Amino acid sequence: MSARLQDFIEEHIPNIESHMYGLVKEVAGPQALKDSMIYSLEAGGKRIRPLFVAAVCHTFNQPRQAMYTVGATVEIIHTYSLIHDDLPCMDNDDLRRGKPTNHKVFGEALAVLAGDALNSLSFGILARMEDVSSEQRLELIRMLSEGAGSEGMVGGQVLDMEGETRQLNLEELENVHINKTGALLRFSIESGAVLSNATKDDREALAEYAHHMGLAFQIQDDILDIEGTSEQLGKTAGKDVASDKSTYPALLTIEGAKSKLEDHYQAAVDALKRLSVDSALLQEFATYIVRRNK
Amino acid sequence: MSARLQDFIEEHIPNIESHMYGLVKEVAGPQALKDSMIYSLEAGGKRIRPLFVAAVCHTFNQPRQAMYTVGATVEIIHTYSLIHDDLPCMDNDDLRRGKPTNHKVFGEALAVLAGDALNSLSFGILARMEDVSSEQRLELIRMLSEGAGSEGMVGGQVLDMEGETRQLNLEELENVHINKTGALLRFSIESGAVLSNATKDDREALAEYAHHMGLAFQIQDDILDIEGTSEQLGKTAGKDVASDKSTYPALLTIEGAKSKLEDHYQAAVDALKRLSVDSALLQEFATYIVRRNK
Repeated sequence: MSARLQDFIEEHIPNIESHMYGLVKEVAGPQALKDSMIYSLEAGGKRIRPLFVAAVCHTFNQPRQAMYTVGATVEIIHTYSLIHDDLPCMDNDDLRRGKPTNHKVFGEALAVLAGDALNSLSFGILARMEDVSSEQRLELIRMLSEGAGSEGMVGGQVLDMEGETRQLNLEELENVHINKTGALLRFSIESGAVLSNATKDDREALAEYAHHMGLAFQIQDDILDIEGTSEQLGKTAGKDVASDKSTYPALLTIEGAKSKLEDHYQAAVDALKRLSVDSALLQEFATYIVRRNK
Repeated sequence: MSARLQDFIEEHIPNIESHMYGLVKEVAGPQALKDSMIYSLEAGGKRIRPLFVAAVCHTFNQPRQAMYTVGATVEIIHTYSLIHDDLPCMDNDDLRRGKPTNHKVFGEALAVLAGDALNSLSFGILARMEDVSSEQRLELIRMLSEGAGSEGMVGGQVLDMEGETRQLNLEELENVHINKTGALLRFSIESGAVLSNATKDDREALAEYAHHMGLAFQIQDDILDIEGTSEQLGKTAGKDVASDKSTYPALLTIEGAKSKLEDHYQAAVDALKRLSVDSALLQEFATYIVRRNK
């Protein structure tokens, strides 16, 4: 990782996290439910999504408090999806980011409900933002609703489940990840553009960047599942192969997956060249995403 | 039920349902997910919440298409909560409205995801409404987020779960139902007031009406669980007693619960007298809610 990107991440993650915890802790509710919601939010993670919101706002020279608020909402949606994903009836995972999963600590019922409450909360947070115009707030809510729901993340999870019972072809596999991982990354990048009042051309270039970043992110995830260790990843490595899951390496071989990763990396970098502003920071993000080892 | 109320319900339910199905069917997503979402929406129910939205708009002489849209969003939230409530890790119910529950038909994973997708969808629908001002849409989104999440329905479900391990006192039991059932009923009634541009005084009177209607609704539910049959209710009767759950009859005896029901009914009717408009329709709703036998 470049020193500049490392500085950027180290500068923003504390703000992202403290802002997000503040937004959730100020909400009323039974203590057990709040504890369960906050446990998973505090369990860490790379905070890629809120970092993307901040990086896009910085790229347009429009850093502002709202980027942390919007970043919090997408991280909250991502976190609820992990809680539900880990449930026994879904992936049945005991370990997430090196810690026991939510339902192992709080029980399945509370894990379901904590996820539900986080899902609904994120939209209320967007609606309550004070320093963003009404039209922008409504646009962000529409985008997050689409990115999170059947047209986006949840739809992708369903396609992913279908891929556990038969080997998908490349087009189907891409469709899984465009939705499952890509939709929220796309929201993160496009929401930064909304907050920055980016032009239509810039938004289109960013949408293309986001598309390739989403696929690159997932291919690297698949590669790490094979080449990484559980300790490094903070979750059970080798699970995809063990469960015979549809992945890029399973479909293309590990070398083919790495070649595909480079293609998407290059396409993402090419899209950035069309931006009207200096895109060095977003390019460094792309490099980080495809070179990361956890 | 009065002939007038019967006419009102018969007139509006087809519109409520067709409008809601249309809003959900037009959303993209994997077929299995869409089937699961629509299965539970189409499983029927009294449609009390969207009927309340419509009844309040009619009370203010402001019937408009948007009342069906707002009614759809609260019914969608209610429906997702039923899907999750019925899961094996929650109430473990096989029967809902006389039909197999969602997870019995589609499996647990898809039931979790269908609920999640419905939850996120409802906020996008509110954000996309065309004939309602931006400020009103944002207010409705804030209200629905609060009513659905840890401060409302989901918070009430957690308190309700805690009431399964020990007998709650009356204040605690009221707190369960103010949130679990009351929050969405309150949204239904107050959203009608928002759509109708009701005055502050009228909104306060309606909030009080909603408060008592929520509690009355739940007390009658508890009474029906004892005095109704599974066939009549479309769900397993007698479950509360069998599971030793905290209920009004358990706390107050069945006679005490009926007396409490009358108190809330009277308080609801009294609140309506403060309205600046003719409240006969809402009064008939109150009578229907507390006298219903399913």
